[in-house]
Amino acid sequence: MPAISKKGLKMPESPIRKLVPYAEDAKKRGVKVFHLNIGQPDIKTPQVALDAVKNNEITTLSYARSEGSEEYRNKLVSYYKKHQVNVTANNIVITTGGSEALLFTIGSITDPGDEIIIPEPFYANYNGFSTASGVTVVPVISKIEDNFALPKIEDFEKLITKNTKAILICNPGNPTGYLYSKEEIQKLKEIVLKHDLFLIADEVYREFTYDGLQHTSVMALDGLEQNSIVIDSVSKRYSMCGARIGCIVSKNEDFIKTAIKFAQARLSPPTYALIASEAALDTPQQYFDDVKEEYVDRRNTLIAELNKIEGVKVANPKGAFYCVAQLPVKDSDHFAKWLLEDFNLNNETVMVAPASGFYSTEGEGKNQIRMAYVLNKEDLIRSVEILGEALKVYKD
Amino acid sequence: MPAISKKGLKMPESPIRKLVPYAEDAKKRGVKVFHLNIGQPDIKTPQVALDAVKNNEITTLSYARSEGSEEYRNKLVSYYKKHQVNVTANNIVITTGGSEALLFTIGSITDPGDEIIIPEPFYANYNGFSTASGVTVVPVISKIEDNFALPKIEDFEKLITKNTKAILICNPGNPTGYLYSKEEIQKLKEIVLKHDLFLIADEVYREFTYDGLQHTSVMALDGLEQNSIVIDSVSKRYSMCGARIGCIVSKNEDFIKTAIKFAQARLSPPTYALIASEAALDTPQQYFDDVKEEYVDRRNTLIAELNKIEGVKVANPKGAFYCVAQLPVKDSDHFAKWLLEDFNLNNETVMVAPASGFYSTEGEGKNQIRMAYVLNKEDLIRSVEILGEALKVYKD
Repeated sequence: MPAISKKGLKMPESPIRKLVPYAEDAKKRGVKVFHLNIGQPDIKTPQVALDAVKNNEITTLSYARSEGSEEYRNKLVSYYKKHQVNVTANNIVITTGGSEALLFTIGSITDPGDEIIIPEPFYANYNGFSTASGVTVVPVISKIEDNFALPKIEDFEKLITKNTKAILICNPGNPTGYLYSKEEIQKLKEIVLKHDLFLIADEVYREFTYDGLQHTSVMALDGLEQNSIVIDSVSKRYSMCGARIGCIVSKNEDFIKTAIKFAQARLSPPTYALIASEAALDTPQQYFDDVKEEYVDRRNTLIAELNKIEGVKVANPKGAFYCVAQLPVKDSDHFAKWLLEDFNLNNETVMVAPASGFYSTEGEGKNQIRMAYVLNKEDLIRSVEILGEALKVYKD
Repeated sequence: MPAISKKGLKMPESPIRKLVPYAEDAKKRGVKVFHLNIGQPDIKTPQVALDAVKNNEITTLSYARSEGSEEYRNKLVSYYKKHQVNVTANNIVITTGGSEALLFTIGSITDPGDEIIIPEPFYANYNGFSTASGVTVVPVISKIEDNFALPKIEDFEKLITKNTKAILICNPGNPTGYLYSKEEIQKLKEIVLKHDLFLIADEVYREFTYDGLQHTSVMALDGLEQNSIVIDSVSKRYSMCGARIGCIVSKNEDFIKTAIKFAQARLSPPTYALIASEAALDTPQQYFDDVKEEYVDRRNTLIAELNKIEGVKVANPKGAFYCVAQLPVKDSDHFAKWLLEDFNLNNETVMVAPASGFYSTEGEGKNQIRMAYVLNKEDLIRSVEILGEALKVYKD
């Protein structure tokens, strides 16, 4: 039998998706599962985007342009301008989701054996894309005690080698919900300029900032034009996770030219989703105001409820719609599986994401979970109630 | 300025898409361009697929399952059964186009430095995906004089090294239109079993076989279960290139398990396109009969017209909707660009794909072009007329 690649063997299984069969089994047994495990919001997609697809007049579903149409990229230029990011259509490459934006970025700037430094805990799929490209993720640990703020710049310095190609941040963060301050982004600017690295910022949660705090894009900083790359996606902004449209934004022409070659190899982003995504840019401001209000309310509820449970410590998120909680358990992988397999409260249980999958340092985050507050308030309260009762009876 | 990756620098520019700006300029000058350059059919998408999207009742556009829903994969099982391929839903992974099916396959079975043997000329993007994965394409040349039939097995034998992981064929072939016989597939079976290699078959043109010839899938051969992998796509079958839905089919469980890890890292195929693709499976047989009749007619027209031009030699395609023609020119890259930049016949010109991009052996195919017969008969006749007149005045 021919062999699987070493890379393929190393590819991590998704820490979230590997629990899916247990959730499906629970449902088959008639147990209702509250999904706090995945960033799939229940929020409605803007009507303007849904309508654009329903009213499409396509008769032959053709390829789109590899890097996205000029019209769509021009509309994105106006969108970014509103967010203090001044770019042209030529600085943008449309991708099949933020996932592909990351894949093209890693492919364009790294070769096998290269290293990317990422504050940990980080979005689990950064590991997947790095492994697929033969790149080593070098974690720099951020702590729940500090609310997952940016680690000290000295901690980054210590990890930089001749193989380091980039620092990658997620801002606001998945899974931490942490929003980097302008000062923190400034510090990152200095270090990447000093060492001639790329600074990649996954800014897909840009709009989801709370408590009056402002988001600072790495593209908004002078002097960082050749070094900064933004990863973006429509998935969370418009609750269109299933569209699979994202983009890369950078003023570095060589980088964009290279990314377009990757884009050409896969021919085209999905046409229907492009129609939805372009239309979504006309979403009225009220939609975002309402969504933000809803998330703030949910966050406040979730954090307040969690804090009532003895032994639970939770970081207070200032953006995105996740939080990381520390539980009085030894192994949250086991706990999360147990919740689905062996526990229910009046035939209801919760599905959470064990945090170990968000760390690449072996053994870190074993007593943490990530929760996505993508459910309504009532369901969140019930979910935490179930979690609390579960913790009372769970034995490591 | 931080550096682009070696891999990124090596990524080939699409031989087809690099001419796009010249075509756009021609159009701006008021010149009508007949597109024979790209496999984008003018055929209508089945109404049942278009309607399914128009009538969708989505309110939150959610992620789909990474490997595709069980429902869709089960429907595909019935589709494959009709094509003498007996598989289960677990043998199928849904991908974002045939492109991603290839990317996951290469990622799952090769590491940087590995080799894949491909009969040449071959679909240009095989080069792109191989380069992106650090894999070396080892070409084995097939000749226009032989209608691009399978090269001798001894030619393959000579190229097999300890780094060889697979043989990749496209059947029926893009760009050649060649349909491999059952005997040829048998020969490939023997060599991959002997050397413990994977046999990857890109069968996206499965339905497009002419002159009463039958397609033989690598999945239909006994004894090849652990070695064979099919790359598939809805793009050509239903004239839905813009959907970006494809799949991987294999009975090798380790391989499928690995491919699913790649699928999980990119989360999900595009949801709207899944709706269209699942519905497309209900396309009435009449649609395919009509399409086939149309393509046969076009092929006959194109070949007959090309044979009227002095100095043009053309292989007779038995499948797909491409043909490779040898022209009395030294450099078809230059000629194709010249057609767009400097030539027109009553304000009309043609865009063709220079064949050099379909070869990885330096200097091969320099006097060949690929034409896709994706236009109606009248436009094909006019296109060849333009080509003939152009050849009269073109100077190398």
